[in-house]
Amino acid sequence: MSIFGEATRNRQRREMMIAVIAKLTAKPGHEDELGAALTDGAAKVLAGEPGCLLYRVARSRSDTGVYTLMEIYASQAALDAHPNAPHFEEIRTALSAHLGAAPEVEFLDALN
Amino acid sequence: MSIFGEATRNRQRREMMIAVIAKLTAKPGHEDELGAALTDGAAKVLAGEPGCLLYRVARSRSDTGVYTLMEIYASQAALDAHPNAPHFEEIRTALSAHLGAAPEVEFLDALN
Repeated sequence: MSIFGEATRNRQRREMMIAVIAKLTAKPGHEDELGAALTDGAAKVLAGEPGCLLYRVARSRSDTGVYTLMEIYASQAALDAHPNAPHFEEIRTALSAHLGAAPEVEFLDALN
Repeated sequence: MSIFGEATRNRQRREMMIAVIAKLTAKPGHEDELGAALTDGAAKVLAGEPGCLLYRVARSRSDTGVYTLMEIYASQAALDAHPNAPHFEEIRTALSAHLGAAPEVEFLDALN
């Protein structure tokens, strides 16, 4: 395995779209408020981050206090920019009042 | 709570977008083949099902044999039509050779 080959793969990895799947659980009694804060946040992310290609909020049918975010970023750079966007702290503050647990976040390579 | 109110909510539920998150695990040695079958299947679903609004395939970075599908359907009717689409059996057959476990499937209300 040559160093050149590894550099090429690293560049491809950097240019791949990244998916993020995050699971967020509401504090009891804050189920609807968490949903509202998440959809408000989604609108801010989509409006302010051209590198965010998808940001969907979904609510579990079996446990209505559990939400799943489906996010796709155009590149690693776009994902890296996400927590540095001007709206990020505002969204985090809005969510924190309604969260009952730490979010579970998974990173994936988006293939299509 | 009136019967009329319940009927209205049921109609809203039927008209809501539905998200599906499915986790599929490859048979050992079939990791890449499962990914190829999933992206081929995604193209068929998106081409043949106007009620399917989103069908993304993502591959775990920590376990490259595990894939997550992120799907959104325009309505319950669009979701109900999915397993009856002409390409469904073809996709299921293509996947079955590469799956190491039964898929885990979760249904959610898509909020945005």
